[in-house]
Order: sequence, then structure tokens, then C-alpha cells
Amino acid sequence: MATERTEPSHPLSGSVGLPVTAAVNERGHLEVGGCDLLDLAAEHGTPLYVYDETTVRGACRAFVGAAGGRADILYSAKAFSSPAFLRVVAEEGLGLDVVSAGELHLALRAGYPTERIDFLGNNKSRDDIAAAHRVGATLVVDGDHELDLIRQVVPEGGVIRCQVRVSPGIVPDTHDFISTGQLDSKFGFGVESGAAAGQVRDLIGEERIDLTGLHFHIGSQIFDLRGHVAALEVVLDLAAELRRDLGWTPRHLTAGGGLGIAYRPGDAPPAPAEFVETMLGALDEGCRRRRLPLPRLALEPGRSIAGPSAVALYTVGAIKDVPGVRRYVAVDGGMGDNPRPKLYGARYQVLYAADPERPPAADVTIAGKYCESTDILAEGAALPELRPGDLLCMPAAGAYQLTMASNYNGVPRPAAVMVAEGEARLIRRRETLDDLLRSEVF
Amino acid sequence: MATERTEPSHPLSGSVGLPVTAAVNERGHLEVGGCDLLDLAAEHGTPLYVYDETTVRGACRAFVGAAGGRADILYSAKAFSSPAFLRVVAEEGLGLDVVSAGELHLALRAGYPTERIDFLGNNKSRDDIAAAHRVGATLVVDGDHELDLIRQVVPEGGVIRCQVRVSPGIVPDTHDFISTGQLDSKFGFGVESGAAAGQVRDLIGEERIDLTGLHFHIGSQIFDLRGHVAALEVVLDLAAELRRDLGWTPRHLTAGGGLGIAYRPGDAPPAPAEFVETMLGALDEGCRRRRLPLPRLALEPGRSIAGPSAVALYTVGAIKDVPGVRRYVAVDGGMGDNPRPKLYGARYQVLYAADPERPPAADVTIAGKYCESTDILAEGAALPELRPGDLLCMPAAGAYQLTMASNYNGVPRPAAVMVAEGEARLIRRRETLDDLLRSEVF
Repeated sequence: MATERTEPSHPLSGSVGLPVTAAVNERGHLEVGGCDLLDLAAEHGTPLYVYDETTVRGACRAFVGAAGGRADILYSAKAFSSPAFLRVVAEEGLGLDVVSAGELHLALRAGYPTERIDFLGNNKSRDDIAAAHRVGATLVVDGDHELDLIRQVVPEGGVIRCQVRVSPGIVPDTHDFISTGQLDSKFGFGVESGAAAGQVRDLIGEERIDLTGLHFHIGSQIFDLRGHVAALEVVLDLAAELRRDLGWTPRHLTAGGGLGIAYRPGDAPPAPAEFVETMLGALDEGCRRRRLPLPRLALEPGRSIAGPSAVALYTVGAIKDVPGVRRYVAVDGGMGDNPRPKLYGARYQVLYAADPERPPAADVTIAGKYCESTDILAEGAALPELRPGDLLCMPAAGAYQLTMASNYNGVPRPAAVMVAEGEARLIRRRETLDDLLRSEVF
Repeated sequence: MATERTEPSHPLSGSVGLPVTAAVNERGHLEVGGCDLLDLAAEHGTPLYVYDETTVRGACRAFVGAAGGRADILYSAKAFSSPAFLRVVAEEGLGLDVVSAGELHLALRAGYPTERIDFLGNNKSRDDIAAAHRVGATLVVDGDHELDLIRQVVPEGGVIRCQVRVSPGIVPDTHDFISTGQLDSKFGFGVESGAAAGQVRDLIGEERIDLTGLHFHIGSQIFDLRGHVAALEVVLDLAAELRRDLGWTPRHLTAGGGLGIAYRPGDAPPAPAEFVETMLGALDEGCRRRRLPLPRLALEPGRSIAGPSAVALYTVGAIKDVPGVRRYVAVDGGMGDNPRPKLYGARYQVLYAADPERPPAADVTIAGKYCESTDILAEGAALPELRPGDLLCMPAAGAYQLTMASNYNGVPRPAAVMVAEGEARLIRRRETLDDLLRSEVF
């Protein structure tokens, strides 16, 4: 896979969300991690997800470095949870946040250390709670029924560490936030309604439970950190009230994740360090003002680590002009491997991998291959003249794509490779047609 | 699984979209195909998809019976493609429409007869076309590049049957349609632009191609058949023009599927027989008016066969009141097994399986277990007082749910059973945690 260098690669201007190692090589092709994307596509086929180890490690280090030992950084596995990827994150010293026994299983098979795992979810099953207890994870309690399940699962004399998920009544917008008091969400116990305080009261009386703190998470793909700070203020008010009324003081405070990433030119999210420092500063200041002992902060970035670390590669197939309306360029993937455009209206930048700096000839619509008119991956993509067989690259493809992939239309799910220093290793193999039959009973 | 009958079951009033065998049994429980849904949930776990063989066969017979030998009915596999399900459809004498080599693989493994298979798709790969050719399927050509691929795949002296997918410029609404002339879609060659006629001209000159007809499909979940008839008129005008200008006359005309089903009270789609008879009548009349030889009609129902044939069963977990706003009832499934609410804003009726006629106590929101605030399966569901462990039933769950299922949040995909005459057989096993690792490379 290593590219034989005749002259140095140069960085690519004018695009966002690419892995940090993205460059144009001496053949004029886009490369990531020293691997020519056209070579990767030829070897592994498309659609192909290419994860850049340097970008993953860099993002992890940005968070851990900014925390400087004053906060725990937990990677949110739901963004992307392949064991080979998790292993890199674990090597960088991050804890983990999981939302199911399945994600925990993937982490354990990756050899993820169990010292710092949070187990979240608005509707945990008995199996989920048993799995969390077995590895000593911190259970983030998010419903009245969990106490019953804990009593069934944790033997007498045993103890499970818990936090209470609270709902601080802050609704984030990407560039703003709304303080509603009462958050209309399936997550968390409301602060305003007294439900959060009531839940803390119930749990601190339980012998089987070591209630270590409070947890909140206000949303995702957020660019404006004022919502996080406002939510933190609400939760610190709650902590002060609990200390006064119940004599209970949180040792831990988890402020969730939600940091946005750049998908398209113009997107300007805060850097990881800014996120960490903003939250640490607000916590310091907020506790001082309330004369609260400083709890240990935890943050749960997912998208901001996995998202920019990967590109998705697709091969062009049908090209269709609807005169006076648009040109459709269909690729060999779509909503089956990336449902985000259809689910969230997400829009991406698209690059011509063989010559990413070639001037565009037209704005085209990138259509998927799935049998739905709305299976569109990108609109208004400025690209040079394309032909069937050309390779397209979509940056910022590392989070919430492969984890949400389906076999819709009978299409096997794509492969993923991890690249570093000119070498690519397969971390997820492409499904076969026979894989489609694995669960079928004849 | 057979319920011991002490008194006859009685049909359920006031609900829509249930399988035809749905009834309340002597225990007061909802049953389907003679199987008590609570027993099924206890034996197989939840989420569970329960397909009713009688409903599948009944829907197939309604289409085939109305066609009366005058039209071909092809089941659209993308609605639900488990081989055990396909086998039932095949036994009822329907042809098949597939959109990928994967769907074709499932069909062949089900032993589906290959006499009448259409192969659709806006961006077929070389492998797709090779698979279609191998089994003698009719290729519905949907892009300029397919001719090149056909030349690569079909040996000299060989022949592949083709139709041309045309875009008649009709945009359906559930209860209306819009005639745009130029349809802005990734599917089909435009009639208005001349692209469709051009494609026919190109293909009839090809030795390897037996161009048998034209194909159109205007959309899905349609209640008003005037859009289909309007589209048919456009395509018959094209056929008359092609006959006059090129001396080519379509022997086949496929009018797609798209017939809607009832998801909620008030939904009143046309019956299958009405769909078939409307299209046959419009074709007869339209050909007579244009003095066109009558082509053989084909229709491709998917949702209207698979959709009403299944219910989804979920177990209640967390129940959460947001005072003054709503009550969230969380179940053990959600957007991972049914992304339709999130993808299409689809809304469902929800029934209390242990006593479906018990008067409702409140309107609640049925939340999924996935870590997204918007993972909501139903809003305003009128249900009796619920407790964790209660079983909920969502009708009309047979189409575009399991086929679109993912492993998001590390959740294994659900099991499915087929019920008939009091017996249930597993047709798709529940995935295990180890299944999540199958494609991972460590």
C-alpha cells in the first residue's frame, strides 16, 4: 500500500473535515495516511471507509492533553465501535461510554480496560445492567425501573457505582441554545420538576448503590458552547441543593459530549481543547461561587474523535441529466451505509479523488444506489466532469455512518481500513452475499 | 404454540392494519394466526416480528385473482426479503422484482422460480447485471452506462431481456398527484426530454438485447390512483410515438407498485383488486384509443403484501413523565429495527397486547431505546395504564422495517416468526452479541 515517493505530498486547500494526513501525492491523487485512495479502492473495492490512525490519535490527545489530568475523557462508542478502532482509542488512555451490552461486548473483545466505563441508556434491560455490573462500569441511571433491576442483578453485599442522568432543560441548537426549564426528552430526570432530586434521594438510601455523581448531555453536533455552560449551571444549582437538603455531594460530574465537527466549508466548531477548557473553567468558577467541593469532570466526545478521522470512498456509476433541473451522479453506496443525509438532512463535501484540486465543471447531485428517490448523499457538489468508474471521496465520514449501516435493498455492508504511514490494514471486512443469509431460517 | 380454545376468539374492532387473523382470544389477549402474542413474546423474546401466513397469502391472492391471468404480479422484494417469506409468495404464483444481486441471492436461496424476475435499480453494477443475466431476469435499464456493462457481461450470441425505465413526470402525493412534465428523480429516462425515446432507439439496435417493454414507478404509499393512471397515459403516448417513429411496440408494460396501506385509523387505501382493475382498465382503454396492441401489464406490489402481514412486539421498560408535557413509555426496540418514524415521519397505532380493548387511560409517547432524542416510534398512543414488562403490539410492521434494520448502538437485530393455524415457526433468528463481531478484523 505504501506509495513510492518521488516528490513530497502537499496539503489540500479549500476542503474541510479531511483527516490530518490528507494530501495530494505525486500522482496528483488524494492520499490519507500515506495511502493513495485510488490504490485502496482498487484493492478493497468500494464503498470503502478509510480511517486515519494519526487523526484518531491526534483528536484523543487534544482532549486528554487539554484535560491535563483534571478531567476524564470517555470516548462515546456509539459514534463508531469497531474493536480495532476502540483499541487505538484505548491506547490513548481514554475511558469509554457505552449504551448497550452489545457495545460493551465489542469493547471487551477489543481488550478495552474496564476502569472507566460509563453505561448509559434511556431504557436499559436487565441484561444491560448485569453486563455493566459484571465489569464494574458506572451505571448512569435513567429511569425509575432501574432500581428494581439493580436489586435483581446486584447480589446482597454487592455494590454498583451509579450516576443519575438529569435533564437540565437546555435545548441546544447548532449555533444557539434554548433554556426551557422543562426539557421534553426521553432522557434524564427533570431538574425543574424535582424528579432529579427525588431520584438521588431514592438511590442514596440503597445499600447496593454507590451514587458517585450526576450526568447530563444536551445534544449533538453543537458549535456554541454556551448551552453546555448554561446546563452546567443548572446542574450545579441542583448539586448545591442536594448537598444542603440531603447531605449528598457529587464526586463526579459528567457533562456529556455533543461537540460538533465540520462537514462543509464554513462549519467552524470549537476545537477539543476549547471545549475541555470551557467546561473545566465553568466548573471551577461555578463550584467556587456555590462553595461546592469540586467534582471530577468527565466529557464524552464521540463524533469529534471518530468523525474527521475517516473518509468514505464511492465509485461513480450512472450519470443522468434532468435537463434544466440537475445532473444526478449515482455512486455505489448511499442510505444503506450512510443514512445521515436522509435522517438528519446532513450535507457533505465531495472530492474527486484522482485530482482533488481540478477545477469544478458543474454542481451535481450525488445520488445513492438505493431504491428511494430521496437517497441522496450530497447536493450542489462542485466536481469536475465525471465518468463511470471515477472515485469520489466524502470527508468527515467516521461517525454515525457505519454504526448505522443496514442491509437495505439486499446490499452487503462496506469494508473499513485503518491507514498509517503508508500501510492500510483491514479493520472491518466487506460483507458477502452469504452474510445476508446468516440469520435466516429456511 | 397452539392456544387451547375454550371459547372462540373474536375479531378486534377499531384498529387498522392488523393481520386478517388478529383476534382477541379467551384469555383476552391479542392473537395472530391462532398464536397468543404474549406466548410468542415469552418464547422468542422481544422485539419480535410476527408474520401471518394467512394475510400474506390473502394479499397475494387478491392481486393475482384480480389480474385474472391478464397481468403479471411481481412481489417487490425490498419490502421484506426473508427467504421463508419469499417462499410463501412464490407458492402463490407471483413473480419477483429485485434491486440488487443480494436480493436475487436471497430469492434463489428461497428457491424462487426465475421465470418472471425483474431486476431494477438506478445504479446497477457489473455484478448486478451479470447476476440478472445468469438467471434470465428482465433487466430494467436505468442509465446510459448499462449498455456498456451489458456488452461486457453478455457474450456474443447471447441475449438479455430488457425494459426501459421511463420517468413520466408525475409526482404522487398520498392523496393527490402533480404532473411536472419533467420529473426531478434519479430514476428513469425522462419522457418529456426525449431521453426515454433515445434510450429505446439505442437499445433496439443492440443484438444482445431483446427490448420487451417499458417500466415506470411513480412512488410509494399512494392512496389516490389517479397519479398511476396519469403516468400510464404519458407512457402510452410514448409507446404510440415509438411505434410510429421506430416501428417498435412494447410487449410488456410495468406500472410499478406504490399502493399504500393503512397505518392508522382513517387511512383508507384502495384495495389490491381496485388497483389491478384500475390499471387494467386504463391500459385497455388507453391502447384502444391509441390503436396500440395491448402490452402485457405487470404490477409490483411490495408494501401492500408485506406491510399488513406482520405486527412488531415490544416490551415496555422505562416510563417517564415530563409533567405538563407528556409521558414517555420506552420500549426495547426503536430506530434500529424500525427507522420509518425517523426517516419518513411515519406514525403507527399501538395496541396493548394483553387486553387490546381495555379503555385507554392516557395518550403516551412510545420512545425507542436508542440514544437519540428523536428515536420515537409513536406519539399520542391511546393506551391503558402501563407497567414495565407489558407487551405492546404495532400493526402494519411487515414492510420496510426489518429490511432497513441496523446494529446501531450495538443492538442485535430482532427475530421474526411466521404464524399459521396456531403454530409459529422461526423464520429469522435473533442476532447474538457475537454476531456483532462477524465482520470485525482484530
